[in-house]
Amino acid sequence: MARESAGGGVRNKETNKVTITEIARQAGVSVPTVSRVVNGRSDVSPETRARVEDLLRRHGYRRKQPADRSRAALIDLVFNDLDSPWAVEIIRGVEDVAHASGVGTVVSAIHGASRPALQWMENLRARASDGVILVTSVLEPRLHEELRRLGVPLVVVDPAGSPSLDVPTVGATNWAGGMAATDHLLGLGHRRIGFIAGPQRLLCSRARLDGYRAALEGAGLAVDEALTVPGDFYHASGFEGAGVLLDLAEPPTAVFAASDQMALGAIEALRRRGLRVPEDMSVVGFDDLPEVRWSAPPLTTVRQPLADMGRLATRTVLQLAAGEEPASRRVELATELVVRASSAALS
Amino acid sequence: MARESAGGGVRNKETNKVTITEIARQAGVSVPTVSRVVNGRSDVSPETRARVEDLLRRHGYRRKQPADRSRAALIDLVFNDLDSPWAVEIIRGVEDVAHASGVGTVVSAIHGASRPALQWMENLRARASDGVILVTSVLEPRLHEELRRLGVPLVVVDPAGSPSLDVPTVGATNWAGGMAATDHLLGLGHRRIGFIAGPQRLLCSRARLDGYRAALEGAGLAVDEALTVPGDFYHASGFEGAGVLLDLAEPPTAVFAASDQMALGAIEALRRRGLRVPEDMSVVGFDDLPEVRWSAPPLTTVRQPLADMGRLATRTVLQLAAGEEPASRRVELATELVVRASSAALS
Repeated sequence: MARESAGGGVRNKETNKVTITEIARQAGVSVPTVSRVVNGRSDVSPETRARVEDLLRRHGYRRKQPADRSRAALIDLVFNDLDSPWAVEIIRGVEDVAHASGVGTVVSAIHGASRPALQWMENLRARASDGVILVTSVLEPRLHEELRRLGVPLVVVDPAGSPSLDVPTVGATNWAGGMAATDHLLGLGHRRIGFIAGPQRLLCSRARLDGYRAALEGAGLAVDEALTVPGDFYHASGFEGAGVLLDLAEPPTAVFAASDQMALGAIEALRRRGLRVPEDMSVVGFDDLPEVRWSAPPLTTVRQPLADMGRLATRTVLQLAAGEEPASRRVELATELVVRASSAALS
Repeated sequence: MARESAGGGVRNKETNKVTITEIARQAGVSVPTVSRVVNGRSDVSPETRARVEDLLRRHGYRRKQPADRSRAALIDLVFNDLDSPWAVEIIRGVEDVAHASGVGTVVSAIHGASRPALQWMENLRARASDGVILVTSVLEPRLHEELRRLGVPLVVVDPAGSPSLDVPTVGATNWAGGMAATDHLLGLGHRRIGFIAGPQRLLCSRARLDGYRAALEGAGLAVDEALTVPGDFYHASGFEGAGVLLDLAEPPTAVFAASDQMALGAIEALRRRGLRVPEDMSVVGFDDLPEVRWSAPPLTTVRQPLADMGRLATRTVLQLAAGEEPASRRVELATELVVRASSAALS
């Protein structure tokens, strides 16, 4: 068997994995110290821990699952907050796959600043977990380190701006979705199309904006910066953004909002001004939340396959828990334009 | 200490609880047989099990929590299906209290007929649980028996027609809510008020209908049966129900729908006919789902305190898990009328 390194005993012959002895040698510490780091004990200096963790990572050292963890039959699904309207869609997808695998889904919210940041981690430590699915969360490096130390596999759904972490992620094709929504409006004859953007710190927001611009440019139209207004994905910012667009000297004839909630806010702003959707202005959203089938009018939007994203994340985390490597560590599931009644040909 | 029964050794002096010996005597079986029933073993005939279970229940016998269950630090929150729009509100309330108690919330769906009825129970058996919160579910007696056998406490949120089971329940004041919505419309001058009902097999539906009727009668108005149309809580039935009401020779001037989704369906039916809400017809819903703040127009509705119901159910199940008796086994939290833009004075 070929060795990947010249050093004797660097890799265990059976598993082809680096040994703790070799990690200790490279870190310049004792084997028991490496063991303490591997087992997440606290009696190691931060500097030593960081050096050893770094070596463990670089050598792809995989912690053995402690015996009591291997039978947890539980995965953790963690949201920043449970007020997100698409939380239930993701829960549905995750629960679907987990349930069929005989695994329970523990749903938690980190609750941002309103609670000690690691309270959730304290709760997790008190019981077993086969893996963690984190949803649209700017993952705190501390949390990430702690999960690694506990040997709990992690998958992120819809990563929102932390692409550098080497965890598997499941997202949606935000750029293609932004382009599809804009192309749809262009195909209906609209030339002045407003855009209500999402928070620019989130990658998904930037991708949707770029998709909007790419579609305009593809149609040979100049991008009018006045037609892009800021938003934060929530209803009120869509309401306000639509107001800004309507107050322009030359308002748009259609609005593409980077979230369904902002699109609903825009529709309400139009209703308050006595304008009808789609007769007076077309509105397109992004997400396809369950309720937008029931808005008045039903919303044309870009469907994010949220339940499918939850399903794939669950399959991935269960694979990792079983010691398997997922086929890909970065997956984007396809978005899809859903045409309903809020968009119509320019009259 | 006073004995509650003349039989010697009927109650343990320290705990004032009936003994297994007495249960065995009354059931006419051996003490080991009663133990087998208590411990959920299968080597007992169904008839004997039923007789013993009945006696255990009547005597309020409480199973000891097995040692490994006492440290589960998990509760189970079970829905029929996760497509319910208010699922996330209840999850939020449950998770809030559980999280603060260091307890994880395992969210599951029974998935009705699409999976073996007790698949969920199989999954539960494979791990520990401190208690189960079941949401608006017609509780299968088998499931109920099985939970009792496992010694897992159970609380039901918003019981929908199974009032005979002796489990603690948390609901909302549906009758008072139906009355408040109707009184609101009467106060705005409406005299012909349509009602789109929920499924009549659910107690909550019947209570809302009775509240509607009581308000009309309180105002000295005769109840016109033609103004009550059937629905199933979902959007399409509200759309259709509103159509039926609009096609009446003398249509109503306001509609009260027994769920928000049906109210949104009614608003869409009106929009399709070119009628405006509230100018041409007032619409009031029931639930106060998060999204109806964002409908066009924002919906006047009866708020069910879903998150609070989840919080109370969680406190109750944690009390039961700790061997405490809840203050009340049947609680209805108050509903509240929320007036937004979909209702207006009769013009």
